Amino acid sequence: MATREVGIGIVGYGLMGRAHSYAYTAAPRIRDLPVRPRLRLMSGRNAEAVSAAARAYGVEETTGDWRALVEHPGIDIVDVCTPPGTHAEIVAAAAATGKAVLCEKPLAASYDSALTAVDAVRRAGVPNAIGFNYRRLPAVSLMKRMIDEGRVGDVLLFRASFLSDEFLDPLIPFDWRFDRALGGTTISDLGAHLVDMALWMAGDIDDVSAQSSTFTTQRSQRAVDVDEASSALVRFASGAGGVFEMARTCARRPCDFWVEVNGTAGTLRFDYPRLNELLYGDAREDDDLYGMRVIRAEHDSHPYAAQWWPIGQGLGYDASFVNQAADLLERWPGGGWDPDLETGLRVQAVCEAMERSAADRRWVSVSEIAAETV
Amino acid sequence: MATREVGIGIVGYGLMGRAHSYAYTAAPRIRDLPVRPRLRLMSGRNAEAVSAAARAYGVEETTGDWRALVEHPGIDIVDVCTPPGTHAEIVAAAAATGKAVLCEKPLAASYDSALTAVDAVRRAGVPNAIGFNYRRLPAVSLMKRMIDEGRVGDVLLFRASFLSDEFLDPLIPFDWRFDRALGGTTISDLGAHLVDMALWMAGDIDDVSAQSSTFTTQRSQRAVDVDEASSALVRFASGAGGVFEMARTCARRPCDFWVEVNGTAGTLRFDYPRLNELLYGDAREDDDLYGMRVIRAEHDSHPYAAQWWPIGQGLGYDASFVNQAADLLERWPGGGWDPDLETGLRVQAVCEAMERSAADRRWVSVSEIAAETV
Amino acid sequence: MATREVGIGIVGYGLMGRAHSYAYTAAPRIRDLPVRPRLRLMSGRNAEAVSAAARAYGVEETTGDWRALVEHPGIDIVDVCTPPGTHAEIVAAAAATGKAVLCEKPLAASYDSALTAVDAVRRAGVPNAIGFNYRRLPAVSLMKRMIDEGRVGDVLLFRASFLSDEFLDPLIPFDWRFDRALGGTTISDLGAHLVDMALWMAGDIDDVSAQSSTFTTQRSQRAVDVDEASSALVRFASGAGGVFEMARTCARRPCDFWVEVNGTAGTLRFDYPRLNELLYGDAREDDDLYGMRVIRAEHDSHPYAAQWWPIGQGLGYDASFVNQAADLLERWPGGGWDPDLETGLRVQAVCEAMERSAADRRWVSVSEIAAETV
Amino acid sequence: MATREVGIGIVGYGLMGRAHSYAYTAAPRIRDLPVRPRLRLMSGRNAEAVSAAARAYGVEETTGDWRALVEHPGIDIVDVCTPPGTHAEIVAAAAATGKAVLCEKPLAASYDSALTAVDAVRRAGVPNAIGFNYRRLPAVSLMKRMIDEGRVGDVLLFRASFLSDEFLDPLIPFDWRFDRALGGTTISDLGAHLVDMALWMAGDIDDVSAQSSTFTTQRSQRAVDVDEASSALVRFASGAGGVFEMARTCARRPCDFWVEVNGTAGTLRFDYPRLNELLYGDAREDDDLYGMRVIRAEHDSHPYAAQWWPIGQGLGYDASFVNQAADLLERWPGGGWDPDLETGLRVQAVCEAMERSAADRRWVSVSEIAAETV
Repeated sequence: MATREVGIGIVGYGLMGRAHSYAYTAAPRIRDLPVRPRLRLMSGRNAEAVSAAARAYGVEETTGDWRALVEHPGIDIVDVCTPPGTHAEIVAAAAATGKAVLCEKPLAASYDSALTAVDAVRRAGVPNAIGFNYRRLPAVSLMKRMIDEGRVGDVLLFRASFLSDEFLDPLIPFDWRFDRALGGTTISDLGAHLVDMALWMAGDIDDVSAQSSTFTTQRSQRAVDVDEASSALVRFASGAGGVFEMARTCARRPCDFWVEVNGTAGTLRFDYPRLNELLYGDAREDDDLYGMRVIRAEHDSHPYAAQWWPIGQGLGYDASFVNQAADLLERWPGGGWDPDLETGLRVQAVCEAMERSAADRRWVSVSEIAAETV
Repeated sequence: MATREVGIGIVGYGLMGRAHSYAYTAAPRIRDLPVRPRLRLMSGRNAEAVSAAARAYGVEETTGDWRALVEHPGIDIVDVCTPPGTHAEIVAAAAATGKAVLCEKPLAASYDSALTAVDAVRRAGVPNAIGFNYRRLPAVSLMKRMIDEGRVGDVLLFRASFLSDEFLDPLIPFDWRFDRALGGTTISDLGAHLVDMALWMAGDIDDVSAQSSTFTTQRSQRAVDVDEASSALVRFASGAGGVFEMARTCARRPCDFWVEVNGTAGTLRFDYPRLNELLYGDAREDDDLYGMRVIRAEHDSHPYAAQWWPIGQGLGYDASFVNQAADLLERWPGGGWDPDLETGLRVQAVCEAMERSAADRRWVSVSEIAAETV
Repeated sequence: MATREVGIGIVGYGLMGRAHSYAYTAAPRIRDLPVRPRLRLMSGRNAEAVSAAARAYGVEETTGDWRALVEHPGIDIVDVCTPPGTHAEIVAAAAATGKAVLCEKPLAASYDSALTAVDAVRRAGVPNAIGFNYRRLPAVSLMKRMIDEGRVGDVLLFRASFLSDEFLDPLIPFDWRFDRALGGTTISDLGAHLVDMALWMAGDIDDVSAQSSTFTTQRSQRAVDVDEASSALVRFASGAGGVFEMARTCARRPCDFWVEVNGTAGTLRFDYPRLNELLYGDAREDDDLYGMRVIRAEHDSHPYAAQWWPIGQGLGYDASFVNQAADLLERWPGGGWDPDLETGLRVQAVCEAMERSAADRRWVSVSEIAAETV
Repeated sequence: MATREVGIGIVGYGLMGRAHSYAYTAAPRIRDLPVRPRLRLMSGRNAEAVSAAARAYGVEETTGDWRALVEHPGIDIVDVCTPPGTHAEIVAAAAATGKAVLCEKPLAASYDSALTAVDAVRRAGVPNAIGFNYRRLPAVSLMKRMIDEGRVGDVLLFRASFLSDEFLDPLIPFDWRFDRALGGTTISDLGAHLVDMALWMAGDIDDVSAQSSTFTTQRSQRAVDVDEASSALVRFASGAGGVFEMARTCARRPCDFWVEVNGTAGTLRFDYPRLNELLYGDAREDDDLYGMRVIRAEHDSHPYAAQWWPIGQGLGYDASFVNQAADLLERWPGGGWDPDLETGLRVQAVCEAMERSAADRRWVSVSEIAAETV
């Protein structure tokens, strides 16, 4: 076990706070790391709740003020797990103290705000990362690797959907997720994962046409200004076409996303409910084998897989966070963290272009978003 | 066996001519029909090929001139199986002789042309039908019935995709499918099925935003003016949202389509590669059964199923045509055929709105298409 | 269309009578045959029922006496679709008149009886076939071809299960299926298909150990002497091991069978509910593709497939009978029919060995069955 | 976090040593436990290897002598992760010192040896548990709960298979897994999981008929006395029938097991490659919903699930061990551990009956095994 400690401070104690804490605890058991993460501090406004959470998650101490966490001398990495609308301010404060930052996705609830965060880490020159955890699943990482290896040829089409039912019931009371300034949109919450995978696997997106629906417009007598279901067409810089859907009103779909790419030489598809599998159809093979393979993406030769269990045993959601924590700690303090907040900003630009397109009912260029804010 | 004959004339001898011939032969074995179909005549320009086809398909005679077929006194139903661009003229001629018409989908290669066909059958008052065969699969028909029964509540979202690889290889030589005036678009060829199911299951579509791609723009030194891959966002009159994709450049996807509807009370999904199954998630059930059912859509209580084989044995593509033929012949000559060419026209309007939207890069109202042509 | 007719007489008018009639009607539409089947006669004891069936199935005439059918001069092929316990007598009578015989599986309700049938066709030298229709599905036929091509190397293990729920409800009244002398056993009814595939794909079976259960021992106040659920271990002559299960008390399993073979170089698996697919895992491939392919077994290069529909459209249960009819008619009158009644006898020997093993609770050699009856 | 520590000593440092270490680390993050596990000591004969492993797994110290571990005063729980043939001696020694024992499955390489272990913990009265980790997966635990709730009625049939390819390659050199005295059999290694689930879900097994194959009889010039593939028929005390298969020569099957139970009122099926799902067919439902549900076994109402992630995110292999560790620590020191070594012994009796049956080629009563050794 590494003797050198890295002090971790987690801002927020919800699901992401729990998932990240779990990951820091488990990461050293999965990979031989140069440093040992120490969960020193967790912040949250509700003192009782954050104390209970810290106890449960194995964090040593708590504070009611995230600024105290950011300034605490024992903290090396500020891990931001609060609602999106609060990210930029916290990231900026952390960067200003020279601390490394891991920020949950989406980077912000608006492009402007995301840019603030990025400017701060740029100026400070601190290591920074954005929490696109699904990239760290072996099957998703393998999909990227196979595209890079040319296994599908040139990408022609990209499609991605993220369906859940978390907003279906009109009786769910108002909370921050229904407040756009705080929680962002369904486009940016669910869609950010899909857009990240799209940019990573198929390159830049030039422009978008989107639509959004909110079926339950009032909750707890408050107006809901967040889209419940959105979809978008996109055009990649490469000339490839894309389709996205992100919806939280899909009955009996708990958290179902899929990503598919069709290239000149093959097809790759990942379905989250089969998270240890990757479908691959190779158009160059003999026709009498026509079809897709179900690659069991846990072979020792696959990304991340050798560190875990024997092939076929299966990984879960937590593995994505454990791999993320291990990837970051492995490179401490040298940086080279990837994806970083710049990536989060590029994703945010696409999401905001979708939001604007849905509002204006016209194609919106991604560069239009960035241009205005510079 | 019924003693009264209905004379069938099939215009065209390609795949659809074969599928329809097969269906007329098999339909009386699957359902007790009031009339007996007699495959009297098949037309095609290539005398040798049409003769060979007629022999193979069990059609008595052939002609090189479709007009001769239309005017043949022994023909009661003109079954139009030629490329879309030729449909309207043939339909109009058949209607003018007072004959019933079954026209393959899409109704035409343009809305104007489709309208000509519909005007002709309206004026003539002849029985007419459009070949949206997939409606006649038990699972698809069951999906419609369950929506009508309220099993998913109010429809919120509709999504449908039709993926194939038939245009992927750039070396496929030019043929009529690459000639828009003759073959129509991928939107209208593959998409017509999806749009038909959408209108049938979720009601009218108000407006659309679409995009199209053609990756191989020249074949056999001729320009290709047909989209190879398109996608569209739609807004239903009910307020529901929709997403469509139709693409013929998806490696190792032979003919994969799916249709999913999410309502206030449940989800239904049909996947063509599992054509005897229907997925159903009921949001009102106990949470400890959370998930989707795989309904084996071959129970005697399901549409069409009792006429076929015991549950679990499975139907194929041909069953959709056999059921179509049986549905039409069962009502001979009283009409009440459904879907009819009016349905084909409504579908065409949506497809053409998608085509225009892709060309103009703007949202296009479906009513805009119809308005111009009136 | 062929001008030379072959007269078909179908003994029995139940599900198999219907499926076979359908097949003779459809076969000439699927394959170019040298002869034209003519459905001349159908026999059954209930005059009204057989008349109704003949009308529905397209058979010209009926008789209440199968002997009249067998002796009818216009009949060339006697197609035996009655309960298993009646097969041998009918086959023998048909053979004695010099007629060709197609007999539904299982060949008989006992090995002795099956042997009588085989002796009769041997003596008469008439073309004869046994109705193992599932062999004629493209995916099953492809599985056999791939084994023969060495795609899995030497067979080590074979497993097959056939599960249904047709006997689950204790209130189902007594009918011939519960009468062993007439209907045979679940081992011979469901199991015959599995054993046929086993012998075809993996060679002779030396000995077996089986068990049987009957959970509802009385129906309509009559004793049930048929097993409802059986399973068996087998040893192949090659040294390979096998496991079989055949059960009719499996809730919500309508007709689910699967066959899997594991060899020194690969695995092949067929699942009937996915009847147009074949799973193939090749152990010699690169490990980074580790997994099974889902072959879409409808490619033109696959057995039977080119005669049907474009890849991905799907075949159903009926295709297995249509292909069977076409295979037989194609070789008329030269013979070479395969599988023939000898195959049915070999299968029966294994089934009877299983029945005896279950009764005696000991391993039983298949040769022991044959030895006694010679 | 709990302040009271429980000292853990792990005997063995292979895969199971790693999985168990991981579980003790993660368990307190998943459940609020009354005690805090402390990984104090790991033993192994190879000093260098065990040191490296201990560092990687987060264990404080190592020893080359498991007896030193057993006698170490800081150890409260001796966790036995060595090859099966060594279990009994270690368990007995640990029990003799009054320490609690968690023993990996199978309990031993023979029933006699397993009985020694059980006798030791009985005499000592120490808490003891056997590592049937798969029981702790939410979907498997839900399956058991649903059977107990009567959701399938009375169990009629039980089937279970465990297929892998770990012994397929004849060039794999000899190691302890091929030495029966040390590694036990494939029946006891893979089969123990299946037999445990069978006894748990369907009750006692009376007798068995089994067969075994070893295809590669020599490795590294040493004789292999372990079965590579076995299968068995069983009869439950309840009258239900069962079929088992366990094989390590199945190409491209990494670790695929499934368990299915058919009852008078329904079917339940668990497939490990879909470890977060449970299939359920309810025979009492309306026929128009005929089929199986795919329960997403991660709902808060399901066993274990609420402690983990939101529904749909998925658990992996590790969760089974983490839940196991949490279950044991939660009840410390009061006991009530389940399943315990008695369960391991009952499983061993069935496995040994299978082994004997395969050797003797006859049905063997499970009670025969136990009777001899008393």
